[in-house]
Amino acid sequence: MSERTIGRELLEGEPGPARSPEAAPPEAATEPVPRGRREEILDGAADMFAEHGYHGSSLRDISQHIGISHSGMLHHFDSKDALLDGVIDRLEAHAQTGLERIPQLRSDRNALLLGLAEHWHPASLPIRLLATLDAESVSAYHHGRFRMARLRKVHEHVLEHCFTGFAEQGLLREGADPAFAGRSLLAVVLSLAVREKTVRPLQSEPHDDAPMKDIAMQVDGFFLEPRPAAGPARRSR
Amino acid sequence: MSERTIGRELLEGEPGPARSPEAAPPEAATEPVPRGRREEILDGAADMFAEHGYHGSSLRDISQHIGISHSGMLHHFDSKDALLDGVIDRLEAHAQTGLERIPQLRSDRNALLLGLAEHWHPASLPIRLLATLDAESVSAYHHGRFRMARLRKVHEHVLEHCFTGFAEQGLLREGADPAFAGRSLLAVVLSLAVREKTVRPLQSEPHDDAPMKDIAMQVDGFFLEPRPAAGPARRSR
Repeated sequence: MSERTIGRELLEGEPGPARSPEAAPPEAATEPVPRGRREEILDGAADMFAEHGYHGSSLRDISQHIGISHSGMLHHFDSKDALLDGVIDRLEAHAQTGLERIPQLRSDRNALLLGLAEHWHPASLPIRLLATLDAESVSAYHHGRFRMARLRKVHEHVLEHCFTGFAEQGLLREGADPAFAGRSLLAVVLSLAVREKTVRPLQSEPHDDAPMKDIAMQVDGFFLEPRPAAGPARRSR
Repeated sequence: MSERTIGRELLEGEPGPARSPEAAPPEAATEPVPRGRREEILDGAADMFAEHGYHGSSLRDISQHIGISHSGMLHHFDSKDALLDGVIDRLEAHAQTGLERIPQLRSDRNALLLGLAEHWHPASLPIRLLATLDAESVSAYHHGRFRMARLRKVHEHVLEHCFTGFAEQGLLREGADPAFAGRSLLAVVLSLAVREKTVRPLQSEPHDDAPMKDIAMQVDGFFLEPRPAAGPARRSR
């Protein structure tokens, strides 16, 4: 399956269109509202959803966080579901960028690690959002349920395709399963996004558990020995 | 550090006592309420929190789920925080059992895999609860924040100590880090608990991604070759 096929199938495929019918239409189509304000509201909603979840953030919390009146926000987004749709639109754009980076990411281990640090960093807003909304989507009633599940599959596929590339180059251990490598690497990324906000603040002394180091160890577990020491990449300089 | 020390330090250590002061006291101490009803309410709250999260479940949703009147529930638990405390008490008892199983779990790979299937199965209620409440605890305002972070550390330590035992027996690959092995294994377990509820329902055809098989692959990544085939354990029969 080519990257493009994955993109079409997973981001635009069933169930339903990628942009759900409930999503707020771009308001430029209806009235000439400055685009800046709408994006600013989505920035604030993304912050709040990443930290408190969809259920843990009220429209009023979000408008206060942004510093906009409640009615001012309702003018742009008439419900929390509409805000969530807008935020998930952004996560889909982020996933799409990941899909487009596959050819570069799969060239070697260091390219993947660099890409992970840039695009899947556990402290970045898209990954924190993905982790929070993904976990909330276990509920059958979560508005973003299907789109979030599809987003997870897209990220798993991007990472799987990197490992498939490494397998084709003979870089992986015998028996290493690219699909499992992709799933488990995404699991570690998402779980670290949570861990950095929960366990990390409890640590009063330095610990040997920096998130990008953990991610490098997870990646290296699939590569042939000699396993590079965790830390700065060595192979392709 | 012995298992007992970890237990004391992590379950009873700072910050604050393991049973938080806000926790509802066992009502046997105050009035003679039948214990069955209280446990039944906690069963229902655990179900609801696992599926919809703390923020996604109202007291009214929970009482409806249980089939008890709202006022009847308030008689036993006067707030959602009190319910959460009771549910986290159970998660701490579950973690304590994990601590006590370390000597058995660390005997060999198969003992660990059996223990994982019994005590850390991604479809089990305690692990689903742990995954949902852990992800919600990224919020600085979550009532269960510190206790959930501590629970995560306890589980990581239990799993780390298993890998330390395997390392002492010379079973692990050179350079395998037991602390990372524990952290990443828990990450995979928690992430699969979510994935089974989000991605799995979207799959219309069989996929090669059964959760206990993924968990076995994550474990085996740290063991010396020959890596046992994923699936039924082979070594210690």
